[in-house]
Amino acid sequence: MVTMKAAIFVEPGRIVLDDKPIPEVGPLDALVRVTTTTICGTDIHILKGEYPVHRGLTVGHEPVGIIEKLGSAVVGYEEGQRVIAGAITPSGHSHASLAGCHAQDGCGTRHGWKPVGGWKFGNTIDGCQAEYVLVPDAMANLAPIPDGLTDEEVLMCPDIMSTGFGGAEKAGIRIGDTVAVFAQGPIGLCATAGARLKGATTIIAVDTVPERLAMARRMGADHVIDFQQTDPVREILQLTDGRGVDVAIEALGTQSTFESCLRVLRPGGTLSSLGVYFGDLRLPLGAFAAGLGDHTIVTTLCPGGKERMRRLMAVVASARVDLKPLVTHRFRLDDIERAYDLFGHQRDGVVKVAIIP
Amino acid sequence: MVTMKAAIFVEPGRIVLDDKPIPEVGPLDALVRVTTTTICGTDIHILKGEYPVHRGLTVGHEPVGIIEKLGSAVVGYEEGQRVIAGAITPSGHSHASLAGCHAQDGCGTRHGWKPVGGWKFGNTIDGCQAEYVLVPDAMANLAPIPDGLTDEEVLMCPDIMSTGFGGAEKAGIRIGDTVAVFAQGPIGLCATAGARLKGATTIIAVDTVPERLAMARRMGADHVIDFQQTDPVREILQLTDGRGVDVAIEALGTQSTFESCLRVLRPGGTLSSLGVYFGDLRLPLGAFAAGLGDHTIVTTLCPGGKERMRRLMAVVASARVDLKPLVTHRFRLDDIERAYDLFGHQRDGVVKVAIIP
Amino acid sequence: MVTMKAAIFVEPGRIVLDDKPIPEVGPLDALVRVTTTTICGTDIHILKGEYPVHRGLTVGHEPVGIIEKLGSAVVGYEEGQRVIAGAITPSGHSHASLAGCHAQDGCGTRHGWKPVGGWKFGNTIDGCQAEYVLVPDAMANLAPIPDGLTDEEVLMCPDIMSTGFGGAEKAGIRIGDTVAVFAQGPIGLCATAGARLKGATTIIAVDTVPERLAMARRMGADHVIDFQQTDPVREILQLTDGRGVDVAIEALGTQSTFESCLRVLRPGGTLSSLGVYFGDLRLPLGAFAAGLGDHTIVTTLCPGGKERMRRLMAVVASARVDLKPLVTHRFRLDDIERAYDLFGHQRDGVVKVAIIP
Amino acid sequence: MVTMKAAIFVEPGRIVLDDKPIPEVGPLDALVRVTTTTICGTDIHILKGEYPVHRGLTVGHEPVGIIEKLGSAVVGYEEGQRVIAGAITPSGHSHASLAGCHAQDGCGTRHGWKPVGGWKFGNTIDGCQAEYVLVPDAMANLAPIPDGLTDEEVLMCPDIMSTGFGGAEKAGIRIGDTVAVFAQGPIGLCATAGARLKGATTIIAVDTVPERLAMARRMGADHVIDFQQTDPVREILQLTDGRGVDVAIEALGTQSTFESCLRVLRPGGTLSSLGVYFGDLRLPLGAFAAGLGDHTIVTTLCPGGKERMRRLMAVVASARVDLKPLVTHRFRLDDIERAYDLFGHQRDGVVKVAIIP
Repeated sequence: MVTMKAAIFVEPGRIVLDDKPIPEVGPLDALVRVTTTTICGTDIHILKGEYPVHRGLTVGHEPVGIIEKLGSAVVGYEEGQRVIAGAITPSGHSHASLAGCHAQDGCGTRHGWKPVGGWKFGNTIDGCQAEYVLVPDAMANLAPIPDGLTDEEVLMCPDIMSTGFGGAEKAGIRIGDTVAVFAQGPIGLCATAGARLKGATTIIAVDTVPERLAMARRMGADHVIDFQQTDPVREILQLTDGRGVDVAIEALGTQSTFESCLRVLRPGGTLSSLGVYFGDLRLPLGAFAAGLGDHTIVTTLCPGGKERMRRLMAVVASARVDLKPLVTHRFRLDDIERAYDLFGHQRDGVVKVAIIP
Repeated sequence: MVTMKAAIFVEPGRIVLDDKPIPEVGPLDALVRVTTTTICGTDIHILKGEYPVHRGLTVGHEPVGIIEKLGSAVVGYEEGQRVIAGAITPSGHSHASLAGCHAQDGCGTRHGWKPVGGWKFGNTIDGCQAEYVLVPDAMANLAPIPDGLTDEEVLMCPDIMSTGFGGAEKAGIRIGDTVAVFAQGPIGLCATAGARLKGATTIIAVDTVPERLAMARRMGADHVIDFQQTDPVREILQLTDGRGVDVAIEALGTQSTFESCLRVLRPGGTLSSLGVYFGDLRLPLGAFAAGLGDHTIVTTLCPGGKERMRRLMAVVASARVDLKPLVTHRFRLDDIERAYDLFGHQRDGVVKVAIIP
Repeated sequence: MVTMKAAIFVEPGRIVLDDKPIPEVGPLDALVRVTTTTICGTDIHILKGEYPVHRGLTVGHEPVGIIEKLGSAVVGYEEGQRVIAGAITPSGHSHASLAGCHAQDGCGTRHGWKPVGGWKFGNTIDGCQAEYVLVPDAMANLAPIPDGLTDEEVLMCPDIMSTGFGGAEKAGIRIGDTVAVFAQGPIGLCATAGARLKGATTIIAVDTVPERLAMARRMGADHVIDFQQTDPVREILQLTDGRGVDVAIEALGTQSTFESCLRVLRPGGTLSSLGVYFGDLRLPLGAFAAGLGDHTIVTTLCPGGKERMRRLMAVVASARVDLKPLVTHRFRLDDIERAYDLFGHQRDGVVKVAIIP
Repeated sequence: MVTMKAAIFVEPGRIVLDDKPIPEVGPLDALVRVTTTTICGTDIHILKGEYPVHRGLTVGHEPVGIIEKLGSAVVGYEEGQRVIAGAITPSGHSHASLAGCHAQDGCGTRHGWKPVGGWKFGNTIDGCQAEYVLVPDAMANLAPIPDGLTDEEVLMCPDIMSTGFGGAEKAGIRIGDTVAVFAQGPIGLCATAGARLKGATTIIAVDTVPERLAMARRMGADHVIDFQQTDPVREILQLTDGRGVDVAIEALGTQSTFESCLRVLRPGGTLSSLGVYFGDLRLPLGAFAAGLGDHTIVTTLCPGGKERMRRLMAVVASARVDLKPLVTHRFRLDDIERAYDLFGHQRDGVVKVAIIP
């Protein structure tokens, strides 16, 4: 049996590199040889046992690679093509997917809708922190990489760019908007870049890590606030002359950031939530205007599918946004356990790591 | 000095009918002689002291009447015309109003946005449970009543029809949607009617008062659930074969109804909240899909202004919806204290009362 | 070789019933035994040679039937299930389809977008006026018929209901709108019904055939205009007191109806075009307000895919709209040439015919 | 009687500077002393008699100035404040304005909607190429200039920035879109800048004047096409690999540019039209996909009102876009006839002129 190296969830606290069989290719699948991948904040939650996955699963959901083998029913691609696939891999043919809600794809379920059902890699099927990854519904998910773009240049497309931009898009940001982005980790930084891309005029980024605040400025923030130096709610209200922001983006997943978003929102404004939460959330009566503020709260799970990936790679190719600085560290797949250690503890100013099998 | 009768908030627990001067008419105002008005659930909160207004204020925000006198700068109307004005009276010229968010009108504030600022009648200025009411920014707010419509036929337009329909509209209900409406008071009944008007295919109404459940069927509900007989969350999931609803409308203002809305919502669905809350709200982690369910939560304060009123009266004239059955009781203005007593205690199957000065 | 009966385009002027092999089932396909189908106005254009298709093609794109055989890669269905498929059969995995524009699906093309590419049945692949039809991308297209609905009740879903409703939906009809629908053939009648479903308050239907005008009233029209008795533009402007309509729907495909739509549109209004045109169109300078009227013109090709079909059958099941009266005549497949003759010449008050293999 | 200098339309071919009384200030008006204004392409059409206005009218609709005197009913402003007003001055209280369609404001008409009714300055009331201008409905229209911005920096806000950006906004440009902009006059250049602001990834600008093509690059175009050197339709289809653009913006007002927009549009794409036309338009059958291409055509008249102006000045203040290079020439009001001559003949690489009273 032919085997490959893969990063496997063994038990809470342990993701290890081990041998696994190279997967069989079904009629709608594609086998992709991974050339670059990365670690996501969600993977750290998996590692810690905070987000449950079954033992023995290969983790990782951000693949860049080369088509090794196509399923018998897959047309329109060639083996040897450089491709990416999104973290979310919709079937294209579920009810959710046909309704345009690809991330809640419930292919195989009775109704075709399943919460978070579109997230399969490293969640419900083997992921891509491995030498090979099997891409399901390949025709809906394989996105050829445009000539001239490197692996690292498109490495943010599968997840954080799609998620971060998605938060700006779903908020309906308009030309002239004032936008606050709470937390400037990889997702928040992409939300900052996305807000700029959508025409926000005044972007206020909140974090406390100096490298991240500096990076936020590179991504398009006009103001940065260190929440340990000053109260961001008061500061933002001051910056907006008491009016509040048109859009507040939550990019961490805590009560504190969620609530602060609501507190800085103008009447009629939109709170766009990107974080993964680990407890109930509270909507304070006053900040929520007793339900009378014409507020909108939207949540976004990473948009996926090959058309989304094509668009994001077009953004990269256009040089409108340069996300390369986000990749601060590089590791061989063989060293992935060290990469988890560094990334999980956010040491050494790490933003994103590249993993090269 | 010429005086009139008006229902005045004296202190928590006491709204009394008393004499007040007929107001002076400013250049942009219109004085309207009230011919019919009604009592709103919000007025009961004011009566109980749960929603604070200043002592001496005339309450009421749903006027039907006749133009008595126009301000010097008001053109396009004639004295003697039959008109209504919305519960929300936008200025038309504030930043909020020009942005289309009339209910958060902040005319007179620095920025032109103020939470709930569009609600003036019986809140920040004298209301219409009186013989006369002064309509501010008359050109933006006076809506002539089409020939052939009676006072009672248009009495629901200023508030509950606008609010209830608004909840259905802001939820973006589409043809073929399944919609649950929690609570079938006046607002909830109008939300039910609004959901039907927008093309919802399966409408599930929840309440416990038999008269209200029966009225819900008249307004367009396909299923009604008595929440004291059965668990509405379980019942709705069963009715939708486990899938959940596309849209859930909250029309009461409690944690329980809000939370139930979230629990019956499919991934990617919309919770449209109409209730006025009196405490913090909680978003349970699971029902909120940890923030990953592509959910939308929208709140709506009654849309106002003369164009909105014109549209709602057109709906009445078209006979698409018949809201007349909602008016279950009638009182003279002189008897308004009795009307408050009946309506406040929801006695005798009351839905809405008509008050005739 | 096993053969079946099929209505085949031979040459302009001739569609004949002939024998054809029953198709082979590919891995993603499903073979459906047709139990009921119908003839579309577009089929008449094909018959006349006005819309070109290749000779030997089986025509027809509105199938109701029973799954006979599933492709090897198709899961989630069972042979023997009663199903429909839309006239438009998106792949689900093309760029167009993943972008939600299923009707312009370009599966197999370089870019995944192709004008009218989603329309395959009786256009680019064999259609369903036959004993059997092969449904491509079965998992994206087969929609099980809810228990209790007859073939005829769902026969309008695949095309005219989807198209007609689509015209109302894409126009963004809002509660209180005034809508004019030009031409009350099957598509126009469904647009009238769709406008009502979306909350239009005043619906004005234009045609000249008395049966169609009568049917228009049943579908929800408030006013009907016989364009041979009166000038519909003048009449509509009169009915709207000079203001014009919020939305005008074109449902025929001629310069005259298109132009009339524009002439009755208020500033800021939307022209929703459903017709298939056979020549260049002209936008008269005045009616188009020299390009300064904030007008919107949208065109809609029949929305397809199983989620769309599910929603439309839900509308049928809800009894919100009763389209059964549209089926005025019934024929055996053996008599389809007579059916074409009757339908093509619009004799005997025909609206739609049911064809039963 | 106190008089002022004003540029007056005398007859086709003649706009002259002459004396006029300084206008009386009504209760809702404000008198503004003009400090800078400019000439618009539309003014040239007026000059030539192609767009009819009544003789004796003061032309010009792009005012920057200082509040000289406020009407008796105007609150929230102070005399001496630096302000701009949009080219379009909505009342705020008409039906059109309350519906958010400020440019079709019909204040004073029976229904409150009037084609192009929001455009008053230099069209239906005296304009701002004068020492003073009377701003109607001042509370809806006066927008204070943020500290630190010069007259010239905000001079493009009242019209071309609002119009050009409006074309990009109404087209619903999304991150990753490919956009073509036909004609790079002042409006087209602003449409190019607006497309960039909204997240377009590939922007293709078409013109033939070298200075304008160079300016287009500064405004954000990725590709420029000189239509006298090459066929822009063929070139754009080549650049997009045969797919066509997501959005095409027309910024001139001719059959040729309008038609080219349609020819380069992908199925499902949007044509956003900004030009003022002077004859009927033709939609070629093929380019319009016989009405089956799911195309959208939108037209936009310059959005106005103080909230719009506030947002645009915020864009200027943010330095996202630098429109100062568009002002290529400066004239004293006394020399306005020379300015018309230069601008009307597009001599000397002129893009926009500043006129200083």
